[in-house]
Amino acid sequence: MPSLRLHHQLLRHCRLSFIPTSLSSSSSSSSSSSLITRSRPLGSTASAVRLMGTMATESTPRLLFRQLFEKESCTYTYLLADVGHPEKPALLLDPVDKTADRDLALIRDLGLKLIYAMNTHVHADHVTGTGLIKTKMPGVKSVISKASQAKADHVVEHGDKIHFGNLFLEVRATPGHTLGCVTYVTGEGPDQPHPRMAFTGDALLIRGCGRTDFQGGSSHQLYQSVHSQIFALPKDTLIYPAHDYKGFTVSTVGEEMILNPRLTKDEETFTSIMKNLNLAYPKMIDVAVPANLACGFQDSTPEARASA
Amino acid sequence: MPSLRLHHQLLRHCRLSFIPTSLSSSSSSSSSSSLITRSRPLGSTASAVRLMGTMATESTPRLLFRQLFEKESCTYTYLLADVGHPEKPALLLDPVDKTADRDLALIRDLGLKLIYAMNTHVHADHVTGTGLIKTKMPGVKSVISKASQAKADHVVEHGDKIHFGNLFLEVRATPGHTLGCVTYVTGEGPDQPHPRMAFTGDALLIRGCGRTDFQGGSSHQLYQSVHSQIFALPKDTLIYPAHDYKGFTVSTVGEEMILNPRLTKDEETFTSIMKNLNLAYPKMIDVAVPANLACGFQDSTPEARASA
Repeated sequence: MPSLRLHHQLLRHCRLSFIPTSLSSSSSSSSSSSLITRSRPLGSTASAVRLMGTMATESTPRLLFRQLFEKESCTYTYLLADVGHPEKPALLLDPVDKTADRDLALIRDLGLKLIYAMNTHVHADHVTGTGLIKTKMPGVKSVISKASQAKADHVVEHGDKIHFGNLFLEVRATPGHTLGCVTYVTGEGPDQPHPRMAFTGDALLIRGCGRTDFQGGSSHQLYQSVHSQIFALPKDTLIYPAHDYKGFTVSTVGEEMILNPRLTKDEETFTSIMKNLNLAYPKMIDVAVPANLACGFQDSTPEARASA
Repeated sequence: MPSLRLHHQLLRHCRLSFIPTSLSSSSSSSSSSSLITRSRPLGSTASAVRLMGTMATESTPRLLFRQLFEKESCTYTYLLADVGHPEKPALLLDPVDKTADRDLALIRDLGLKLIYAMNTHVHADHVTGTGLIKTKMPGVKSVISKASQAKADHVVEHGDKIHFGNLFLEVRATPGHTLGCVTYVTGEGPDQPHPRMAFTGDALLIRGCGRTDFQGGSSHQLYQSVHSQIFALPKDTLIYPAHDYKGFTVSTVGEEMILNPRLTKDEETFTSIMKNLNLAYPKMIDVAVPANLACGFQDSTPEARASA
């Protein structure tokens, strides 16, 4: 397996120098890459190598970012806010009904102003928290793709930009898991987060991808979406999926381009992998999909639909 | 609840200017903090405010950082590596036996050289992966505090520095949950990560803290440890705990100083809160603690202990 550079810059022009220091450990650890030192001299004469060099310090980001986990459906909800803006405008991506109160408490505690509750697609495995959040925090607008055919305050399309303060997300159509799947990508520009962050929903998962056997899914479309819209992003772009079942929290475009066991294959192989997954019918789908078409409201009263 | 500045710099000297743009949404969203724009003109004459300003771009960090989750015990394992160093030396903090293979596969996939498998303390709720990792990846050294009285290749004390490449962690003694608890804090300096990151184990949890009723626990000590060693760090220091049960992944010193329901109280109130938790006896303690005293080896053969 090739070693990955990932999104990390190699330190250049570094000089090596020997710095006398003492060890609290066996000499086996005194290599150029590892060392345990005692802050106060212990009289040891052991010496060790340290890399000396210079590197620019990071600027403090204006983006407040939190990844939140819902254990039952293994769903990640993402909170993004521009804390450099006086109003601290915030977005919530893929909220879950069961954890809506947790998310709203965090938003209040951090003094943020939630403006959008957004979904990457109409989820089949959990009920979105969007409707609940709109009820509990009036003024919040729901956002989903036009292609999803779901009800929302704002329907977005490929190429749209969703601004919150001085920051924005780009909308990229990434159909294939469902017909309406989109990937939200942080903006490009000097005052936007670096590296970029892609919220891929179920289009691209860490070392995997969403199934393509319902809700207008298509292996051909998913393959094209990931390669043309996600793998086309800079390699250091951080991948934040809607789910992870193994406890991973993040990956990068560069990593998935080399390590994704499905999407590194050619399209024909990918399609046959997806055709032979033999997955069970999603247990939540008959509740979740109708509800998620109306912001997660689980009844279809005019009131609920009106406020969705 | 006061609004928190957290670790985010306010954008200064920003000028406002009107930029004609079109909306795909109701005018209700055309405030100074929120806006959805269509990349291609749609003939709308709506205009919106955007903040114009300059901000330094972030440098690309040399630290590779991954937070990994073990669902059963809600444990976070942390992977840190200096990918600016030719050897890509890496540390694993608080690995779990059940997820050791996942962690080692990730380390191999990323081309890292694992040098230390470390623990913040002798865990009572899960078996550490340290022993398994040492068996599966020879050359890896185990690290734990001297005060924990556990067996390890390197025992560290307050003030020690653990170097991996050009990066290092500071060891801070934070007893109270157990007598041997330490917090590992990323180094201070221009070529160290900014903001700093504190791996607090069970001393400080997000909006909580570890129990103090066994393994030499002491509410008085825990209160002193958190206030003198963790709350004394810069407010923007990121808090990465050993566990979270609600799906939070990170907090900051500034946040916990204002929002932690236990540690914002005076010591007397804190002690009485801790005295009255009435928690159940940890179901794993009788297996986990003896094993974790020997790097997680669940037998006490001389071979196991020798290789611990």
